[in-house]
Amino acid sequence: MSLKLYFAPGACSFVPHVLLEMSGTAFEPNMVKLHKGEQNNDDYKAINPRGQVPVLVNKGQVVTQIVAIVLHLDQIFPDAHFLPTEPIARAQALSTLAWMNNTVHPTFTHIFMPQKFSDQPDVQAALKTYNTQVFHGMLGELQSLVLAAAAQGRTWLTGEHFSPLDAYSLTLTRWGTLAGIAPEVHPELWAFVQKVAAVPAVSRVMARERLQLNMSPAA
Amino acid sequence: MSLKLYFAPGACSFVPHVLLEMSGTAFEPNMVKLHKGEQNNDDYKAINPRGQVPVLVNKGQVVTQIVAIVLHLDQIFPDAHFLPTEPIARAQALSTLAWMNNTVHPTFTHIFMPQKFSDQPDVQAALKTYNTQVFHGMLGELQSLVLAAAAQGRTWLTGEHFSPLDAYSLTLTRWGTLAGIAPEVHPELWAFVQKVAAVPAVSRVMARERLQLNMSPAA
Repeated sequence: MSLKLYFAPGACSFVPHVLLEMSGTAFEPNMVKLHKGEQNNDDYKAINPRGQVPVLVNKGQVVTQIVAIVLHLDQIFPDAHFLPTEPIARAQALSTLAWMNNTVHPTFTHIFMPQKFSDQPDVQAALKTYNTQVFHGMLGELQSLVLAAAAQGRTWLTGEHFSPLDAYSLTLTRWGTLAGIAPEVHPELWAFVQKVAAVPAVSRVMARERLQLNMSPAA
Repeated sequence: MSLKLYFAPGACSFVPHVLLEMSGTAFEPNMVKLHKGEQNNDDYKAINPRGQVPVLVNKGQVVTQIVAIVLHLDQIFPDAHFLPTEPIARAQALSTLAWMNNTVHPTFTHIFMPQKFSDQPDVQAALKTYNTQVFHGMLGELQSLVLAAAAQGRTWLTGEHFSPLDAYSLTLTRWGTLAGIAPEVHPELWAFVQKVAAVPAVSRVMARERLQLNMSPAA
């Protein structure tokens, strides 16, 4: 088998995991248990010295970083239409993907892994509290994108085809529930994410990762 | 003129600014003075509601985010070879670009704009101190990439052609000097960045942005 994906349940590796499942190709999914520190094992560090997921291995060649993996999958599976081909539509889809990846995602890192930004417990606590509010606002921005897509008659965020932005929306909204942000606070986003979860390839990946969509204490 | 770039002197907009200059195409450079808060003017927010640079406007269509702009410029100027075309080399170049953009760049944001992550002055001060050390380590990683490229006989980080990674390396190293990290601490990176700065298109952009390469107090 020429394609392998290293993923961690619930991590952002969900995005390429879904695309691979959707492509219909055979691939080898390799689970990395972050809570057991497997990302820091010598074997894993030999693959990705930064000790992060996702990693895609294509014929022995390692590709890290969601944006790079997604673009690579789009290149090798053009019939899946993961990204628009019209230049401006494509650039705007990549703009939103980059924003999710360099802004929304790292904001959650301040809540989930504040130790990446400070070694002081009180600073870490302050980061969690402040960035939970920031993340809340960003989920609101994400909901605006969902509403804008619907207003333009799009089935998914970028158009008629399912894209990495749709899968990432699920991940980010689910992370919000882990941060105590009830999904019902953003009802149109929540409805959209449930639609994403109902796509057969997405459901299969959620089952493989054993993911529950809503991790709110009240759920 | 069909292409406009909104940039701020010394900001990461330097990366697409250099590529546009290198493309040889006519474009309209628009300076946004961040210290005067111009990014928050109504006129600018109408273009980019997030109030950030860079913004590329192509025939009236707005594209934000470095990664998206760079990929768009690569698509419309294929002869400039901004990114490798061989699929794995391309994916690995984009992986490094994504890392610069979602990891190294936001680490500097903790030093330069800690108010984005906390409204408490003591937390902001702690973030500055801690993340200066983290940034120092990341410049070391960047230097490793420079050394690896040289060991493989590459002229630039991705091969024989100048790429957005080379321009971003200059920006990140220059930011390090603003954070008090003397560039001589990473001598091979510093030599590489000086080579980048000597490229005619880069020099012209540095002159337009009025950039000094080394902002260390001792320089």
